[in-house]
Amino acid sequence: MDIPFFFEADLPANPAHFPLSPETSKHCIQVLRMQQGESIVLTNGAGLKYDAVILAADKKQTVVSLANPVFCPRPEPLTTIAISFVKNPARMEWFLEKATETGVSAVYPLVASRTERTHFKAERWENIIVSAMLQSRQVWKMQLHQPVDFSQLIQQKMAGLALIAHCEEGVKHSIASMEHAVNRMILIGPEGDFSPGEITAAIRQGFKPVSLGNTRLRTETAGIAAAVLLQNL
Amino acid sequence: MDIPFFFEADLPANPAHFPLSPETSKHCIQVLRMQQGESIVLTNGAGLKYDAVILAADKKQTVVSLANPVFCPRPEPLTTIAISFVKNPARMEWFLEKATETGVSAVYPLVASRTERTHFKAERWENIIVSAMLQSRQVWKMQLHQPVDFSQLIQQKMAGLALIAHCEEGVKHSIASMEHAVNRMILIGPEGDFSPGEITAAIRQGFKPVSLGNTRLRTETAGIAAAVLLQNL
Repeated sequence: MDIPFFFEADLPANPAHFPLSPETSKHCIQVLRMQQGESIVLTNGAGLKYDAVILAADKKQTVVSLANPVFCPRPEPLTTIAISFVKNPARMEWFLEKATETGVSAVYPLVASRTERTHFKAERWENIIVSAMLQSRQVWKMQLHQPVDFSQLIQQKMAGLALIAHCEEGVKHSIASMEHAVNRMILIGPEGDFSPGEITAAIRQGFKPVSLGNTRLRTETAGIAAAVLLQNL
Repeated sequence: MDIPFFFEADLPANPAHFPLSPETSKHCIQVLRMQQGESIVLTNGAGLKYDAVILAADKKQTVVSLANPVFCPRPEPLTTIAISFVKNPARMEWFLEKATETGVSAVYPLVASRTERTHFKAERWENIIVSAMLQSRQVWKMQLHQPVDFSQLIQQKMAGLALIAHCEEGVKHSIASMEHAVNRMILIGPEGDFSPGEITAAIRQGFKPVSLGNTRLRTETAGIAAAVLLQNL
């Protein structure tokens, strides 16, 4: 059984007594019924990890003592997935959970010309990302960017590998054939794909067109396939 | 807009008039409000595809005329995923949808020593697989096997690549480093992983231990990661 693992955004740089957030306190004391003297592990989602021991168990504000700080550098590669909103919000949330599990470092919710709905639920999505990070015992939280327009995103200067996945005809590379680069970004289109104009514009900006396999994937499935292929490149 | 695409298990080998199943009839006539003279596409999920035109629109039994039979050979590689049941049935259903989209050819629901729940819903799962097959415009239906015990499955003689994904210590290969083989099977364990004894037994039977990346994945996520990596090997 793993030691319970929690997220606290504001961990101090050095060991100290630390009051857990109300959410973490509640989870430790009410849900897990933990008591004084028991151990947990804390991360700030930015590489810092502490062992902690419960000094004062309280379901609103439990106090712990921090020990053994460990800083883990951000694992590479750094994979960024810019993915269109999809009609069914549950599918987007599912994507966020799975992208986090596979170690994707950042996600841009994308608004393309054929994107139908844009329902950005920052807080709810952050909670999903944190739960998935803890569940997979990671200490770096996937960064959730603000939604961005396709045309705006492709103007940004890309360091490393910049890819666009689409279903239109034309030359496409396989992700496996791509040269190694620490930074990898891929654009995933909405139901109905990117428009031909968007694809041309992205390629003009240096995005390489790629295929994610021989079957037609839903947007969120394409996002996960891209995450898995890029993380294992 | 794609021509509506439906599954009919019992398509004839040669063009003929054909009565659609009640489900397909209802979907065409009641849901899509299609009428006499309109076109649909049918597949039997075993490589056969027909263009069809509605002759008599009826929400219980619509009759169509079949034309232009096309037989598509089963696409290779042939990827089989043997995956443990998970506690949350929705996660298993999600896996089935995504595995179908990525073109996996067969799934074994696996009962390992640490598998906690086994809730095999054959009909419901078949429906999920058919919907995903149609959604991704495939003409081969992923085969859903009966649940099988781990010890029983690893006794089978494996043609091609036989892999086991696990989180225990020890030598593990990356899937990308595997030699090409038409037939690929991978074993995915339950929450809490396979037992050391199971891992040893599988390796003794010729299964190669593989890693699916640097993060700890949920069972259903590991299943999809394996599907994507094997389909793109």
